Amino acid sequence: MDTHLAGSASSTRPRVLIVGCGFGGLAATRALAGAPVDITLVDRSNHHLFQPLLYQVATAGLSAPSIAAPIRHMLRRQRNVTVLMAEVSGIDKARRCVTLADGQVLGYDFLILAAGATHSYFGRDEWAAHAPGLKTLEDAFRLRARVLKAFEQAELAPDPARQAALLSFVVIGGGPTGVEMAGTLAEIAHHTLRDEFRRIDPAGARVLLLEGSERVLQALPPALSARAEQQLQGLGVEVRTGCRVVGIDAEGVDVQPDGGGAPQRIPAHTVVWAAGVAASPLGRLLEVPLDRAGRVQVDGLLGIPGHPEVFVIGDLAAAQSQEADGRTRPVPGVSPAAKQMGAHAAGSILARLRGREASLRPFRYRDYGALATIGRKAAVADLGWLQFSGYAAWLFWLFVHIYFLIGFRNRLVVLMDWAWAYWSFQRYARVVVEPAPAAGGEEGTEGKEGVSPAPHRAAGRCG
Amino acid sequence: MDTHLAGSASSTRPRVLIVGCGFGGLAATRALAGAPVDITLVDRSNHHLFQPLLYQVATAGLSAPSIAAPIRHMLRRQRNVTVLMAEVSGIDKARRCVTLADGQVLGYDFLILAAGATHSYFGRDEWAAHAPGLKTLEDAFRLRARVLKAFEQAELAPDPARQAALLSFVVIGGGPTGVEMAGTLAEIAHHTLRDEFRRIDPAGARVLLLEGSERVLQALPPALSARAEQQLQGLGVEVRTGCRVVGIDAEGVDVQPDGGGAPQRIPAHTVVWAAGVAASPLGRLLEVPLDRAGRVQVDGLLGIPGHPEVFVIGDLAAAQSQEADGRTRPVPGVSPAAKQMGAHAAGSILARLRGREASLRPFRYRDYGALATIGRKAAVADLGWLQFSGYAAWLFWLFVHIYFLIGFRNRLVVLMDWAWAYWSFQRYARVVVEPAPAAGGEEGTEGKEGVSPAPHRAAGRCG
Repeated sequence: MDTHLAGSASSTRPRVLIVGCGFGGLAATRALAGAPVDITLVDRSNHHLFQPLLYQVATAGLSAPSIAAPIRHMLRRQRNVTVLMAEVSGIDKARRCVTLADGQVLGYDFLILAAGATHSYFGRDEWAAHAPGLKTLEDAFRLRARVLKAFEQAELAPDPARQAALLSFVVIGGGPTGVEMAGTLAEIAHHTLRDEFRRIDPAGARVLLLEGSERVLQALPPALSARAEQQLQGLGVEVRTGCRVVGIDAEGVDVQPDGGGAPQRIPAHTVVWAAGVAASPLGRLLEVPLDRAGRVQVDGLLGIPGHPEVFVIGDLAAAQSQEADGRTRPVPGVSPAAKQMGAHAAGSILARLRGREASLRPFRYRDYGALATIGRKAAVADLGWLQFSGYAAWLFWLFVHIYFLIGFRNRLVVLMDWAWAYWSFQRYARVVVEPAPAAGGEEGTEGKEGVSPAPHRAAGRCG
Repeated sequence: MDTHLAGSASSTRPRVLIVGCGFGGLAATRALAGAPVDITLVDRSNHHLFQPLLYQVATAGLSAPSIAAPIRHMLRRQRNVTVLMAEVSGIDKARRCVTLADGQVLGYDFLILAAGATHSYFGRDEWAAHAPGLKTLEDAFRLRARVLKAFEQAELAPDPARQAALLSFVVIGGGPTGVEMAGTLAEIAHHTLRDEFRRIDPAGARVLLLEGSERVLQALPPALSARAEQQLQGLGVEVRTGCRVVGIDAEGVDVQPDGGGAPQRIPAHTVVWAAGVAASPLGRLLEVPLDRAGRVQVDGLLGIPGHPEVFVIGDLAAAQSQEADGRTRPVPGVSPAAKQMGAHAAGSILARLRGREASLRPFRYRDYGALATIGRKAAVADLGWLQFSGYAAWLFWLFVHIYFLIGFRNRLVVLMDWAWAYWSFQRYARVVVEPAPAAGGEEGTEGKEGVSPAPHRAAGRCG
């Protein structure tokens, strides 16, 4: 019976409402397994996404299901959870309830907001159409289609200048995602597509990585940034640090060199946005102070002022870690931090339910180090006590990611796909599936661009 | 050098233009491997699709890349082929050239038209929005999203009547695809989703299969149709033969019983169209006689009147098989037929190039039998000399399809996925990726429908 009553009005157990099933929301939900609470987990998608590998779906190395697991399947055995696929449209802190897009109202005794982040174009939203970001599976499919179609259109395009633009790929942002994307794009051009084209040479493709600051992978020590840059260059990526992007359109990118000078034009058909991240707009619904990135400023217990029953975790939270030395340090926007915050919030709820308020300790982020992969046999690792790069770091990165993947089946399949890709240089998910409206629009323009003013070479022999 | 000249104006080898890379186009291309011709293969998508398993992508049993291989990768070693991803917009038989959507013109000495078929709503195109068909990967993703979201929305919907409609699935058309879809939908409802919902019982879902004629799987002997119907019922599918669909809208289907009577209303949120097939509109560009299904009426050599250099093969052709007994028999629209036609057309081209016109023989379709799967351990097989059904037929179906899959990797992965699904009752590709505009529209209405007039149960406790 309990099953069907879970989360229903007739139940009198405290209601925990968790919004978002990323690393943070999932960790919080699991930490409450077996607890005498009714959990309602709301997410607008039906799957938990292993975002660290999303770039591999975008670059045709993995298929979507390998990194996305159905939320309700993952949690089917946790009987105190009701999973709802829905959008949240309103939060009423005073009345302790959340409104869904379809008008339903869900009451709560505890709320954990874990809605994550999206990409930000620093107020230049018109760039979105030309430089898609990479946060959802839809984004990944759109990007995959755009990259693969760029090569297809180059093979089709009679005009050399147009071919060159089609074979120019610009990645904006030298963080982990940008570095991974640039490295993989270079690998695709130089290895994966070898021998497959007759009119163009994909190896001639140009891959640029643009970073505003003076080095890539800011989060890592300068020595590792330097190693990463060398490995990128080894893969054939042009790395440009210290240059600001001032314009993006369907034909290319305008960059401003540091210290001024005239903006320089880079003709490119495919531009990937890996620069800005902004917190989910859901944070605004709380009507509390946000930081510049739109993140909710939370206290040591990850709560908000005056509402200890409301927790904000993961990328949506601007949290401080309470260090051993008494100082505080900002918590980085990485998945281990989100998981730790989720577990901490769940722990606080359990402590309160057991009347152990006194036992509550402020959140402390445990940093197990940073990893970034660059491409085939190339990566950098910083474990704090140990820093290394190259093949060893790449293998380490590989097994860490396999280990943290959701589900045994996915671990097996991804390991197989990677082994396959390693030996064959192939990427098996090279399927263009025309995705959402955005791409539909793109289609239109591409159709236009595709028109060759000069008659095609074959025309001469026609008739 | 030859590589880069392939298909270019400076080459003087005969130009073979093949439109469409389904089973027919691919077979023709491969049959011309090593021949002294320049082949240009045009397809609007970048992949060859193994359509017999498309329903498994739609029902989350397989991921798209498992049944779709990049065309240019499959043909990378066949140096006399240039692959172009493009749409054909015009054919000029007199001047022997084809125009692409981007304005390019491709001349040819031989043309093989293998553009396949699409679904037909018998002139009721307004049904398309409510009853998607299943021909492309986009269709499969749209259908997968719709099926999975129907269960999600039922869990969300407070209103029982609405829940019932959301949990009603209607498959229209009792051919192989319709039978496979219905059987798999029943399996999903009764096995895959067990224990995953808290407010609804997915096993209560209703799956109807509607067939206009008096039996399912018309192409098979009546005895096997009967077995198939029994196996469908065993899986929990309601089979209704001899009923005509007279209306489809967002809320359900209207069916007219044979012999008249008032149309009956079946409330259903998810309707799958597996009934009508029409030839690709490309056939019209030839300006030759078409049959009622829009197929091109070809002669014994699969050519068209007055243009022996133009071949039409596969589902786009209305061809007659020249039997041993001198009679002719219509060639069925199945993949083995398409492959055989492709090889035959290629053979005719080679014979002409070698001046062996006299050796040309009219096309004869070799029928190796028919197979249809119904669901878990259920299938029917007709090898002509042997008919069987049930577990044995299912295993036979399974290995035949593995065998014909493109690429060793896919065979391995699909075999693994099926073994996994068999033992775990799970379908791993249960990922909703919001697809093309169609679904976008659907979204809108669903949002509306979703609004619950009565306040949700949780509202009572709010505040």
